[in-house]
Amino acid sequence: MTISKPRGTRDFLPEETARRRNVEFKLREVIQKWGYGEVITPIFEELELFTLKSGQGVIGELYNFTDKGGREMTLRPELTAPVMRAYVNEMQSFPRPIKLFYFENCFRYERPQKGRYREFWQFGAELIGSSKPEADAETIALAMKMISAVGIAGDLNIGNLSVLRYLLAQITTESAVSDQIMRYIDKKEYENLDIYLGELFVSADLIDKIHQIISLSGKDGFEAVKRARSVVGDLPELDTFEKTLTFLSAYGVTDYTVDFGVARGLDYYTGIVFEVYADGLGAQKQICGGGSYKLISLFGGGDVVSTGFGIGFDRIMEICDLPAEKPESVVLITKPQTQINGIEIAERLRPFIAVLTDVMGRNFKAQMEYANTVQADYVLIVGEKELESGLLSLKDMKSGEQVSLSLEDLILKFS
Amino acid sequence: MTISKPRGTRDFLPEETARRRNVEFKLREVIQKWGYGEVITPIFEELELFTLKSGQGVIGELYNFTDKGGREMTLRPELTAPVMRAYVNEMQSFPRPIKLFYFENCFRYERPQKGRYREFWQFGAELIGSSKPEADAETIALAMKMISAVGIAGDLNIGNLSVLRYLLAQITTESAVSDQIMRYIDKKEYENLDIYLGELFVSADLIDKIHQIISLSGKDGFEAVKRARSVVGDLPELDTFEKTLTFLSAYGVTDYTVDFGVARGLDYYTGIVFEVYADGLGAQKQICGGGSYKLISLFGGGDVVSTGFGIGFDRIMEICDLPAEKPESVVLITKPQTQINGIEIAERLRPFIAVLTDVMGRNFKAQMEYANTVQADYVLIVGEKELESGLLSLKDMKSGEQVSLSLEDLILKFS
Repeated sequence: MTISKPRGTRDFLPEETARRRNVEFKLREVIQKWGYGEVITPIFEELELFTLKSGQGVIGELYNFTDKGGREMTLRPELTAPVMRAYVNEMQSFPRPIKLFYFENCFRYERPQKGRYREFWQFGAELIGSSKPEADAETIALAMKMISAVGIAGDLNIGNLSVLRYLLAQITTESAVSDQIMRYIDKKEYENLDIYLGELFVSADLIDKIHQIISLSGKDGFEAVKRARSVVGDLPELDTFEKTLTFLSAYGVTDYTVDFGVARGLDYYTGIVFEVYADGLGAQKQICGGGSYKLISLFGGGDVVSTGFGIGFDRIMEICDLPAEKPESVVLITKPQTQINGIEIAERLRPFIAVLTDVMGRNFKAQMEYANTVQADYVLIVGEKELESGLLSLKDMKSGEQVSLSLEDLILKFS
Repeated sequence: MTISKPRGTRDFLPEETARRRNVEFKLREVIQKWGYGEVITPIFEELELFTLKSGQGVIGELYNFTDKGGREMTLRPELTAPVMRAYVNEMQSFPRPIKLFYFENCFRYERPQKGRYREFWQFGAELIGSSKPEADAETIALAMKMISAVGIAGDLNIGNLSVLRYLLAQITTESAVSDQIMRYIDKKEYENLDIYLGELFVSADLIDKIHQIISLSGKDGFEAVKRARSVVGDLPELDTFEKTLTFLSAYGVTDYTVDFGVARGLDYYTGIVFEVYADGLGAQKQICGGGSYKLISLFGGGDVVSTGFGIGFDRIMEICDLPAEKPESVVLITKPQTQINGIEIAERLRPFIAVLTDVMGRNFKAQMEYANTVQADYVLIVGEKELESGLLSLKDMKSGEQVSLSLEDLILKFS
């Protein structure tokens, strides 16, 4: 009987793992240069953390379970809520802004499909404590720099919920009502939207303004802001947004679409929202999503605004063609009489290059074959003759070139 | 209402995460130089994988649960079984030996105590496909090199189950019986052992031999092997063991205790078993355990022997005093009129040093204070005067020294 991996999960073998680590390390390199510090939170959380954030409806998508103590737990579906919980529990006294990042696995319980796994990875950032356009611009620019650092040209869509929210505030103060309106807009169900707005006795003028705003998009962000002003007037939020776009230019982020119709399903976003799409495997796919949000007060902390984003690491891996970065390696070929010398030589060379010695008691030919199958960069022959002469025979497996070098020269060559 | 992290888990904040990553990367560096490739397996597995390996009794310690599809699952308690499952599923056709490593979180469901968490980390290696002393020596030496690479002096205990198993084979062929005997030995319950052996009508001579073997230990491994030979005769397993010790010398691993009484609770170990202990926080604690084992046939693969070990990463972190390795950082101080310039300068410097710019709209003094609280290495003043002169004022926060440099000179300085 053979046991398989659980449904919807993957094993990553060395070649693929090395490819993933290579991409991960490139992303880490960028974000650390922006002064973000990494956090690690538990794999599972109390279920309530996520129902509090997203409502009971979210449970259907979660990988939740009852633990042995009868507690309702879930494998985390995303990292923003856990990181904000950790902030409330342990970081409220930290100097702000707090710049955090994470690279972790997340889980969902749904029918696995191609490219949708029950265990998947997210690389994300949270900038806690600022509601300024500087913060919005920084997170967007950072996301774009990370994506381009792994060789992906992403299409950036920037929205701003504050304009829609301003119009909705004229209709209702009930969040259930405005959430319903946002959902219709997010799903582009404009007919249902109009029926719903009609039932609420919203004026034709206001309905018209809503439609103007949700259809307002363009590559010239400043022009889009101008047009939004002509619909809703001089909102201070539009000034802030304009500043965000100005800062973005300074970061070199000028190619994007501003879309005031982006309503995202998530109710806790406050101002800016953004999404990045990329071409891969035929279809355009979202590889990153983010925005400014309020979750901290919901979790028992103060009234602190944050901005953040999550990059779908598995989607990045589908699209990105960075190769696995394997360390240079040499396979030592020994005979029974020279095994001890081989181990001693391996130990001398290991600070500089990956060294594999025979652990199978194989003969010369079989050891050479193994060097071939593991795609070693070099083989080093440690025979009796070589040890006597003090010159070891090094073969470059790509060029086929063979040279005789002393151990000291080998160390020099690889260091 | 505040939600806390789940019982027995931890949040790792940036300082501690950086410390952990520093140690992790040092361990990675070593193992990659030995030609091992990383694998990643799912967080959860079918419960059966672990009961097959360790019996139904193990369930009491597992973080198992019933998933939404009614399947009995568990968060993995260790990585050897998952990696062997992955071998059976996907790596049987790979050229052997297969050298794998992993660094992953594991889970147990038990009353949390100081230093014992429900989520904990393991760094481990598996060398699949060799039953040779070369393989045994390589895994032991690798474990010791990894441990010493993070500055820990571990006490190495090496045992060999084949001698005990040879004696047990003269008593019984039933694995339940020999497992019971091994358990008494492992727990050093010698009185119960004698009662049990008496009930099995084992001869006084054989009981005496068992006692001689389980009390046989010493710092001189070759001498210990000699004494074992005087009890059980010229077993080929003792020749193999002697070779392992010879290879270990070549690796520079000469300080250890050979102990033929090590019986470890785990029934799947075949020959060599080893444990590493280290002084930390008052008590000596086991930080690593390993040995040669057979699991692959149990999981539906061929009759393949492996050798491996797991390092308890959390225990390593308790003992090891490597600091967090933070990238060098500079905080840019700007005025409202120079923010855009600040962003542009930040972008020029980021390839070389971590740069933080203000995202709070703070004044000069508050920005300086922030630079202090985040322990920046430098602050760079980007005022109007500085921009006009082309010379930016850089302050070394440790020495207090201040210099005026052009952007080009700053790039030179940090690159």
